[in-house]
Amino acid sequence: MNSFYLLALVSPAAERLRYILGEDDDPPNPTVFTEMDTLQHDGEEMEWKESARWIKFEEKVEEGGERWSKPHVSTLSLHSLFELRTCLQTGTVLLDLDGYSLPQIIGINLSQIEDGLLKPELREKISYVLLRKHRHQTKKPIHRSLADIGKSVSSNTSEFTRFSHAQSRSMNDITDTPSTDQLKNKFIKKIPKDAEASNVLVGEVDFLEKPFVAFVRLIQSTMLGGVTEVPVPTRFLFILLGPSGKAKSYNEIGRAIATLMVDDLFSDVAYKARDRDDLIAGIDEFLDEVIVLPPGEWDPNIRIEPPKKVPSAEKRKSVFSLNEAGQMNGTAGGAAGGSGGANGIAAPGTLLRVFPRFCGGLYLDIKRKLPWFPSDFYEGFHIQSISAILFIYLGCITNAITFGGLLGDATDNYQGVMESFLGTAMAGSLFCFFAGQPLIILSSTGPILIFEKLLFDFSKGNSIDYMEFRLWIGLHSALQCLVLVATDASFIIKYITRFTEEGFSTLISFIFIYDAIKKMIGAFKYYPINADFKADYVTMYKCECIAPDPGDASGEDAPWQQESSLLSTTLLHLNKRGKQFLDWTQLSKKECLKYGGSLVGKSCKFVPDLALMSFILFFGTYSMTVTLKKFKFSRYFPTKLRKLISDFSIFMSILMFVGLDVLFGLNTPKLQVPTDFKPTRLDRGWFVFPFGKNPWWIYLASALPALLVTILIFMDQQITAVIVNRKEHKLRKAAGYHLDLFWVGVLMAVCSFMGLPWYVAATVISIAHIDSLKMETETSAPGEQPQFLGVREQRVTGIIVFVLTGISVFLAPILKYIPMPVLYGVFLYMGVASLNGIQFWDRCKLFLMPAKHQPDYAFLRHVPLRRIHLFTLVQIICLAILWILKSTVAAIIFPVMILALILVRKMLDFIFSQHDLAWIDNIIPEREKKKEDDKKKKKKKGNKGEEESEDEVCPCSGGPRFPTPSVIKIPMEPVQSDPQNGIHCITSKYSA
Amino acid sequence: MNSFYLLALVSPAAERLRYILGEDDDPPNPTVFTEMDTLQHDGEEMEWKESARWIKFEEKVEEGGERWSKPHVSTLSLHSLFELRTCLQTGTVLLDLDGYSLPQIIGINLSQIEDGLLKPELREKISYVLLRKHRHQTKKPIHRSLADIGKSVSSNTSEFTRFSHAQSRSMNDITDTPSTDQLKNKFIKKIPKDAEASNVLVGEVDFLEKPFVAFVRLIQSTMLGGVTEVPVPTRFLFILLGPSGKAKSYNEIGRAIATLMVDDLFSDVAYKARDRDDLIAGIDEFLDEVIVLPPGEWDPNIRIEPPKKVPSAEKRKSVFSLNEAGQMNGTAGGAAGGSGGANGIAAPGTLLRVFPRFCGGLYLDIKRKLPWFPSDFYEGFHIQSISAILFIYLGCITNAITFGGLLGDATDNYQGVMESFLGTAMAGSLFCFFAGQPLIILSSTGPILIFEKLLFDFSKGNSIDYMEFRLWIGLHSALQCLVLVATDASFIIKYITRFTEEGFSTLISFIFIYDAIKKMIGAFKYYPINADFKADYVTMYKCECIAPDPGDASGEDAPWQQESSLLSTTLLHLNKRGKQFLDWTQLSKKECLKYGGSLVGKSCKFVPDLALMSFILFFGTYSMTVTLKKFKFSRYFPTKLRKLISDFSIFMSILMFVGLDVLFGLNTPKLQVPTDFKPTRLDRGWFVFPFGKNPWWIYLASALPALLVTILIFMDQQITAVIVNRKEHKLRKAAGYHLDLFWVGVLMAVCSFMGLPWYVAATVISIAHIDSLKMETETSAPGEQPQFLGVREQRVTGIIVFVLTGISVFLAPILKYIPMPVLYGVFLYMGVASLNGIQFWDRCKLFLMPAKHQPDYAFLRHVPLRRIHLFTLVQIICLAILWILKSTVAAIIFPVMILALILVRKMLDFIFSQHDLAWIDNIIPEREKKKEDDKKKKKKKGNKGEEESEDEVCPCSGGPRFPTPSVIKIPMEPVQSDPQNGIHCITSKYSA
Repeated sequence: MNSFYLLALVSPAAERLRYILGEDDDPPNPTVFTEMDTLQHDGEEMEWKESARWIKFEEKVEEGGERWSKPHVSTLSLHSLFELRTCLQTGTVLLDLDGYSLPQIIGINLSQIEDGLLKPELREKISYVLLRKHRHQTKKPIHRSLADIGKSVSSNTSEFTRFSHAQSRSMNDITDTPSTDQLKNKFIKKIPKDAEASNVLVGEVDFLEKPFVAFVRLIQSTMLGGVTEVPVPTRFLFILLGPSGKAKSYNEIGRAIATLMVDDLFSDVAYKARDRDDLIAGIDEFLDEVIVLPPGEWDPNIRIEPPKKVPSAEKRKSVFSLNEAGQMNGTAGGAAGGSGGANGIAAPGTLLRVFPRFCGGLYLDIKRKLPWFPSDFYEGFHIQSISAILFIYLGCITNAITFGGLLGDATDNYQGVMESFLGTAMAGSLFCFFAGQPLIILSSTGPILIFEKLLFDFSKGNSIDYMEFRLWIGLHSALQCLVLVATDASFIIKYITRFTEEGFSTLISFIFIYDAIKKMIGAFKYYPINADFKADYVTMYKCECIAPDPGDASGEDAPWQQESSLLSTTLLHLNKRGKQFLDWTQLSKKECLKYGGSLVGKSCKFVPDLALMSFILFFGTYSMTVTLKKFKFSRYFPTKLRKLISDFSIFMSILMFVGLDVLFGLNTPKLQVPTDFKPTRLDRGWFVFPFGKNPWWIYLASALPALLVTILIFMDQQITAVIVNRKEHKLRKAAGYHLDLFWVGVLMAVCSFMGLPWYVAATVISIAHIDSLKMETETSAPGEQPQFLGVREQRVTGIIVFVLTGISVFLAPILKYIPMPVLYGVFLYMGVASLNGIQFWDRCKLFLMPAKHQPDYAFLRHVPLRRIHLFTLVQIICLAILWILKSTVAAIIFPVMILALILVRKMLDFIFSQHDLAWIDNIIPEREKKKEDDKKKKKKKGNKGEEESEDEVCPCSGGPRFPTPSVIKIPMEPVQSDPQNGIHCITSKYSA
Repeated sequence: MNSFYLLALVSPAAERLRYILGEDDDPPNPTVFTEMDTLQHDGEEMEWKESARWIKFEEKVEEGGERWSKPHVSTLSLHSLFELRTCLQTGTVLLDLDGYSLPQIIGINLSQIEDGLLKPELREKISYVLLRKHRHQTKKPIHRSLADIGKSVSSNTSEFTRFSHAQSRSMNDITDTPSTDQLKNKFIKKIPKDAEASNVLVGEVDFLEKPFVAFVRLIQSTMLGGVTEVPVPTRFLFILLGPSGKAKSYNEIGRAIATLMVDDLFSDVAYKARDRDDLIAGIDEFLDEVIVLPPGEWDPNIRIEPPKKVPSAEKRKSVFSLNEAGQMNGTAGGAAGGSGGANGIAAPGTLLRVFPRFCGGLYLDIKRKLPWFPSDFYEGFHIQSISAILFIYLGCITNAITFGGLLGDATDNYQGVMESFLGTAMAGSLFCFFAGQPLIILSSTGPILIFEKLLFDFSKGNSIDYMEFRLWIGLHSALQCLVLVATDASFIIKYITRFTEEGFSTLISFIFIYDAIKKMIGAFKYYPINADFKADYVTMYKCECIAPDPGDASGEDAPWQQESSLLSTTLLHLNKRGKQFLDWTQLSKKECLKYGGSLVGKSCKFVPDLALMSFILFFGTYSMTVTLKKFKFSRYFPTKLRKLISDFSIFMSILMFVGLDVLFGLNTPKLQVPTDFKPTRLDRGWFVFPFGKNPWWIYLASALPALLVTILIFMDQQITAVIVNRKEHKLRKAAGYHLDLFWVGVLMAVCSFMGLPWYVAATVISIAHIDSLKMETETSAPGEQPQFLGVREQRVTGIIVFVLTGISVFLAPILKYIPMPVLYGVFLYMGVASLNGIQFWDRCKLFLMPAKHQPDYAFLRHVPLRRIHLFTLVQIICLAILWILKSTVAAIIFPVMILALILVRKMLDFIFSQHDLAWIDNIIPEREKKKEDDKKKKKKKGNKGEEESEDEVCPCSGGPRFPTPSVIKIPMEPVQSDPQNGIHCITSKYSA
């Protein structure tokens, strides 16, 4: 009881590794590709057969299936690791052997063993076995199978023939040039170019009485002919031959060394090891870090799919390379968290300090964006851009038509669909060309529409010339925007936290969804369905045009007579008295009503089929888009095809349902773009003259309404910019808030002069733009999960979208085939898709989930559920209030309400602790956070020891960080520690 | 180099365990529930706070979240396990302590330690610490959070108040009665009744300089008051108190012992251990079986969800309890596989031997089924039955109506809808009451329909009385069936393998799907859509009834005049000459055509809206059913509610779309059941007299067509029975092929006498019946996956379904609200759902998947992909041929074609090896298989050692079996082994 234990303060293994891995200056070691071959006996014949391979994860040859298994995490048995350790302790270890071919290497190898241990005849036999040919698992095309049928009628012998056909044999162990089989192997694409191979050969032979083990590192990697399935030079060789009867165990040992060889840390050790003990230390270190699953809770037969993310090798290695061992424990976690949390460039906090210089922000924005300018173009040429362009283009023209129509109604066609198209095209393309954040898509927005409506009514009521008045407001507002730019006022958005940002974008998404559904339901009002229709009584349904009572029209000419010249002659007849009369029954509904007729009949107010067809088109487009988008995650078809289908899902759905619509030939409402390039109202031109129509004081007074417009524009623009520049999008080229606002201001002035609508960033379409440009890594090692890399940041898609919008006038013949319900379906999809990844929305869903089924969100581990619910509830209430406001005339101050949201959020500081808010609302920008983290840690250190490393996870990175290298494992205090605290070294057990 | 290593042949640990676990007679040990409490310091105050608990998997208290984590697999570090080992080696171990309260136990515990090792003042302090109160993590309702807001305005102090409110404190460590908190804890439901608790207490204190460790087993489990969160008596106590600064490490050790305590094997060891060394041996054994994940391939922070299945504890234990250690390795796997592969009763092979006795099979069937008869009724009372009844009832009446209509057409209404209803009700309910397999649902089938049609045409052409002729055919056929029963002819289905069975059921499913879609498309023909309709020209659309040319009718009365008495007077007018004339414009379409009028107008041949509405109802019902069915796996709502929604998905979808249909009020085609109980044709009664209408030789000659009917019936019936009795369904009550056929024969005779259609098992509806009655385990331990238990085998659902069918005549007022398209949607769902779980269908899907994305099916690991594809291709070709046959008149010999399928399958024996077929086609029945397995193993043993245990997986169980306890781990040879093979014992390292 006296020799007390618990926790060695430093292990000799770690000490050793620190020594050999300590020098940081070396170039990084090449990636190791490991192939394991096992010895097969076919009667007297022997050959080496590939049984598994590793790049990062394990792929096993399915014996019966003659195929590669899915890449999976290597689950080892503890036993095999210990046995491997013993093997390396007792077997031959040759480091830096100068070998050029397999026979030579084996020769040197065998000669190293003392004579007493290996009889000469065994030596020869071992050499013979090791030089047997290698057979690799290569894929054969399926069409072989049909040819095979004939051959394999008698099952037993044919079975073998088939086997040997399906797999390539390489006989040339001695040649150094790669065989054709090796060169043809497409697997080479998955291996990094600088990779080196490590070959593991295990097998049982009957002539040995005790195992023969050798670990060889060549001084230079060498092609060993057909030993490896791909032409990758071999650097390491592990050989284990043993007496019969233990094949499974040899296999497991082989898997253990193979897994070790692809371990980032151990492969470093293997490259740098000076002697056997360094390798042993590497294994010990590996053992110290392994994760153990209890046998009763996990079935070892389950192959574990590679995780989304694995602990970075750098972190594991860093333990050994840092010199200030004492400080290590405190800071390693913090540093790693910082690097994991994306580059801080995109975070508003760092970009939007108030610069003391006039136009300082603008200057810095330009300075920052200018170097990216060329790449903004050449990076746009990618197939993904095409799908993005089609998607956003359709969104934009639908928007342009919708808002154009509404604006036309509101302003008595002073601004109509044509103006909307022209304005969108001009403003959008200029913005995408010059702005700071070209991923933002400009569009008309609701508040602007309401403002225009109020302005027009006011002008009309007070006999002010609307266009001139509007021009002045626009000019004032543009000026105010430029003042805001010059004074770097955009810093205010520093106060926009996740609370505000997500509230805003959720609201906009809801408006999108609501509008799409409202329009769809509108179709049922537009095209009423006759519910009482009975097929048998089809004879009862008609709608006749009845001539107006002739008595009424006695005095003067009937309406039709006034326009009789316009009527076609087929409709006009002369009656007996020689007087013209109209054939009322031949009139269409419109004409009939126009000329004073009345419609009588049961079918007059009904339109068959169109409502239901519209619904099918609407819902079909939406659900097909959703389904195809998910297709990326299905098992069918090769990855590339699936990705293509997923990228073009919207386009394909639109095509599909346009096709369906054409097939049915129903007269559904279609997309109609103007076909002539002229102002909607004939009495206005393309330029508004600023003077002459209104009294002079109007020019000054318009500064007041302009202020409202400015706030409106500013809030709408900047909050969308914040959303677009979200950290989650991993933008490299940073934001340009000042530059964006500058261009919005300039465009405002231009649009005012041309009498076009004003434009500002459109949240949902911008998010859709970003979503359609997301990049992922092409998976390299089999089994590695694709990582989200960022967004294709470029100006090409935006510019082309708006140029297309401009020339839509000429595309009208094509566009007229697109039914509106299909586009509403696209809008619905946009709205729903933009809700994805919004934490607020995720939190809303939590209300419906029992605690035990909730996903493992980081914030759920750290903030009590009821606090999260409370926070969500506050947000929901805020949104509800905003929604109500939006539905009234108060909508005009809607963007101003965002300011109110910021205030509400400030008040939440009193209700929620900073800790909770840090998790739910990401309050603290990266840098400041790190400082606080450090402070916290220092405070904690002495106090509560049992706080776990999880608690030190950086909330800003949005997910759990990898834990700091556990304090137990590699404590960096000096070896001569307090004898009472740690005498007995546990890890020393391994070296027993 | 002389002392050679590799693989200890027996470890002392295993030897020890075999000794203590060897006696098999003891009652099984209770389940262990483990709770881990850690010591918390609140300034001067100390208390024990629950930090994790285990039933089978780990649940952790999320510190910040104040909630339980999801149950997950405990991932331990190897380090902590070794440290735990050292702890047990050096700490106090008290086995069979007679304790009744915590203070007393602690007292005894401390007194056991020698005085030199623990100073008296420390003793007191430890005792003080250990008696601190325990705080448990209990759930608090969410509504608290709102009340909390007020309290927690100032964040720092309030944070603590909140904390203490949300968690219950139990102050009563000393009382033995459970506290109210304990009693209120609903978690107790998850713990088995006989469970005993093991309490793990870890913490750091400042007064200790070296850790204090104690492991206590009480002689009898005792309630220790508030120590455990639930009132479960404590049996084990593990205490670890150590000096400050190592809390995380103590925690990990606590987790390690907790995980060990819930391990089936170790808990046995803990119960039976005689001394410290037994415990150590238990740990060593555990270590020997752990699964190791490499640190570079897995992130230890990921919580691993509990697997679907874990290795059974029995298997792991069996190693230690069997006495014939030598034979062990060879047979353990086979035995386990046999028990895993469901009870062999349901396999056709065992039931269908040719019994030498007359009626032997029938006798055995009755003998086997009779004991289950009472339970067949009381087991039917379950909520799930309601959903099954509704589902199958709707399927049955739709089927009855469809087939009734078709039969009526085919037989000139000698058998119509009414006969179909009556026959279905009678035959179905009798069959469900008395048959061997009451899960089978009887129905008319396609081949019978075609036979009736041919028979009727033949009778008509040759002036034979159809009903009498049919009666005799039925009687002959019934007799032939009984002969087949008496001679045990059902043994033939032994030759029906998966190939045939799945081919048949896939075909039937396709027919279902095809029919459903065909009927849907039919709606577009029934209700043509007017594609050219333009709303503006509504005035142009009408359909007028034009009177026939009066010239034609001059000679005789026009058709309307002949029936003028039937016409309502509103339509008849007197013209000037006093002659009746008809107001043609007021006639309906039917009347118009009937009286010789002609329909003129653009809208005559169109029916608006109905086709599209039908489509929406059809597709909506189908997709909503699919969605709701999947809802069981969503995260929303509590498990029970989700299960209910999933069970009633079809009913809810039908309700929903019936509601939608009612809402729209459109005149969609509705389900119309006959409302009067009388034969469809007035000239027939409910009994067919056997003599008098046909010549006598017909009575004998009808034996020939009867033979065809018999084959038809026999094949259809028995293959469906094979499908229903599939091993995957895990039926307990076994099949009754002979008894089934007996009743089919009897019912055939009865139906023939009553002039009702003949009935035979309906594949798709029977599968649907089984699917709707599937049982799963109610999950007990948190995290354990529900296991498929079997099917609710009873007669109640079937009987009620058919009784309901019988009284549908009275349910007509309700049923008439159900639109037919909704029912077609249900049919589509049935067809698609019955494809699920068919291996053939899974194999078809493989064609579209790149190899690397294919699911990990067992057969894929063992059979080359191209062989699988070839097999699938043969099946597809067979099905295609059958499909073509089915579409022609040859359909009548369709069931006979199944025999051809069996032949094709026999021929495949020449193309495929038996190994491949064993995997793809499950050829070998359970028992024979096992023998062959054994043979194979013996053959292999000497030969290829490196075949892996996976290869010995039993293909019949349909999935990978758990591997045999690895040969390396616990070889059962005597301890005195060949010294050259194993000198150095690896596991002995643990005991260093």
